[in-house]
Amino acid sequence: MKVLIIGAAGMIGRKLSERLAVQDGIESVSLHDVVTPVAPPSSIPFTVETSDLGEAGAIERVLAGRPDVIFHLAAVLSGEAESDFEKGYRVNLENTRALFEAIRLAGDGYRPRVVFTSTIAVFGKPFPPQIPDDFLSAPLTSYGTAKAMAELMLSDYSRRGYLDGLAIRLPTICVRPGRPNKAASGFYSNIIREPLNGEEAVLPVPESIRHWFASPRSAVNFLLKAATLDSSVLGDRRNLNMPGLSCTVGEQIAALRKVAGDSVAARIRRKPDEAILKIVEGWPENFDTQRANALGFHAETTFDEIVKIHIEDELGGTFVP
Amino acid sequence: MKVLIIGAAGMIGRKLSERLAVQDGIESVSLHDVVTPVAPPSSIPFTVETSDLGEAGAIERVLAGRPDVIFHLAAVLSGEAESDFEKGYRVNLENTRALFEAIRLAGDGYRPRVVFTSTIAVFGKPFPPQIPDDFLSAPLTSYGTAKAMAELMLSDYSRRGYLDGLAIRLPTICVRPGRPNKAASGFYSNIIREPLNGEEAVLPVPESIRHWFASPRSAVNFLLKAATLDSSVLGDRRNLNMPGLSCTVGEQIAALRKVAGDSVAARIRRKPDEAILKIVEGWPENFDTQRANALGFHAETTFDEIVKIHIEDELGGTFVP
Repeated sequence: MKVLIIGAAGMIGRKLSERLAVQDGIESVSLHDVVTPVAPPSSIPFTVETSDLGEAGAIERVLAGRPDVIFHLAAVLSGEAESDFEKGYRVNLENTRALFEAIRLAGDGYRPRVVFTSTIAVFGKPFPPQIPDDFLSAPLTSYGTAKAMAELMLSDYSRRGYLDGLAIRLPTICVRPGRPNKAASGFYSNIIREPLNGEEAVLPVPESIRHWFASPRSAVNFLLKAATLDSSVLGDRRNLNMPGLSCTVGEQIAALRKVAGDSVAARIRRKPDEAILKIVEGWPENFDTQRANALGFHAETTFDEIVKIHIEDELGGTFVP
Repeated sequence: MKVLIIGAAGMIGRKLSERLAVQDGIESVSLHDVVTPVAPPSSIPFTVETSDLGEAGAIERVLAGRPDVIFHLAAVLSGEAESDFEKGYRVNLENTRALFEAIRLAGDGYRPRVVFTSTIAVFGKPFPPQIPDDFLSAPLTSYGTAKAMAELMLSDYSRRGYLDGLAIRLPTICVRPGRPNKAASGFYSNIIREPLNGEEAVLPVPESIRHWFASPRSAVNFLLKAATLDSSVLGDRRNLNMPGLSCTVGEQIAALRKVAGDSVAARIRRKPDEAILKIVEGWPENFDTQRANALGFHAETTFDEIVKIHIEDELGGTFVP
């Protein structure tokens, strides 16, 4: 299986590359991003290409090897797509449309599996307590809008046989590795990662706030499963809410305490921030992911697991007690 | 109020033009289409422009007068968008995006009301018995896909304050005036219109088939209401299922018999067509349009009314008994 990852330099792209490097049945992997992605050590041939996908010829070059599976992870994320409207639509909508068009026009019966990372940001308030699989996309950001538009295209191109697409709507990925960032959602990971590093973390919202999570390891599992799933069972609905764990911030902290002890959990400092609370209150809290469950997608079922996965995958099994 | 109708030469565009010609509070009306639209007799100044909206400068020309209300009715319809994929996306998606972009970039605080005609073809099987307002868009045609994509853009551009948009998802308009056409949905109108003209009509499906209707008069009422509705009550969900009448083909025929007599209803000839049945079976049967109802949108409540409206508006009050 020849694999192409578009958006390979991001957090999910890097983790997916590392998994593919040790996965059976992979013939070659091409990594593409606007900043140079890193090929992991592997016996499988990795190639790396750096370009803006919107440049003339860029898409044709990444498709030249006729990859069997294309992971399309590249995106301008929520905050930037909101502040730079034109860039958001250009990358999230137009580049995606150009990619699908290039695949359609490739000829020779070329019809790759396209796995597209979508997002729960396609949903906007008001929600039911648990969002069902047939709930409308009514995004409240330009990011969510372009993702929902790309999902619709993906389904239509799949229905017409131009590609074989699957969009997976990822939960908030937690615990994100790396430094704290200023995303409104950053605290969900910060309050776990920083205390385990011996650092203080700021919690800007009440412990009663509920949200929808999966680990980076689950995200990679979703992508790999989506790459090989028999798409005939999906019918014409190619956009799937991925499973996740619904839990409150209080439950996150309790899990951290249980796994790592009181002194770690004590490194969380409460500092209410009304602006962040206002954003976060508009986000989904819980889903009923019947379709994905029936297809065999799985996520964590307790936040304890999410904390342990972070310690195993990012901290070599240890933390600052 | 300065009004622009894009797609003014179509059936709905013509009827809307005629209504605006006698409506209070209209300062001027501009009609645009790719084929020359007809300005109705009126004391209000009508201007007519014929061009392909995708031509360089065409959008800027239609916006030059800074219309307060823009009715965007132009579309490549379902059958053609399915057979000519590129034309469908170009007109239904790209031209709509170019229109919204031109409005965004117009400057001077220009923020017109944009009334966009969408369609129940944004929905695809499987459905619940009554489709609720928060049901997902999962279209099964390229036409429905591009309309659903345009709806998402309309909401996003409205949320950001670039325009003040409202998309109305029209039921199947019945009775369509004019000659019988070969659209799969054509028989819904043919079986009423042709018998009233003294002609035979073919019914290709069983009488048990149920569908969702409104009259052309209701469609124009929806558009006019959408043009002046206080959009602040809509919040960020700018896409509305319009009210309609759910009835079976058998109920259509019973209404024709009641209004026009046995001899008229006897002009319907049953000739089952499996291909048409297969298409029609995939269409919505019924909606629960709570939001539109609460906003004061109204459609017919019996098919008798729909038959009578056709006789009044198209046949001068008479028919061939």
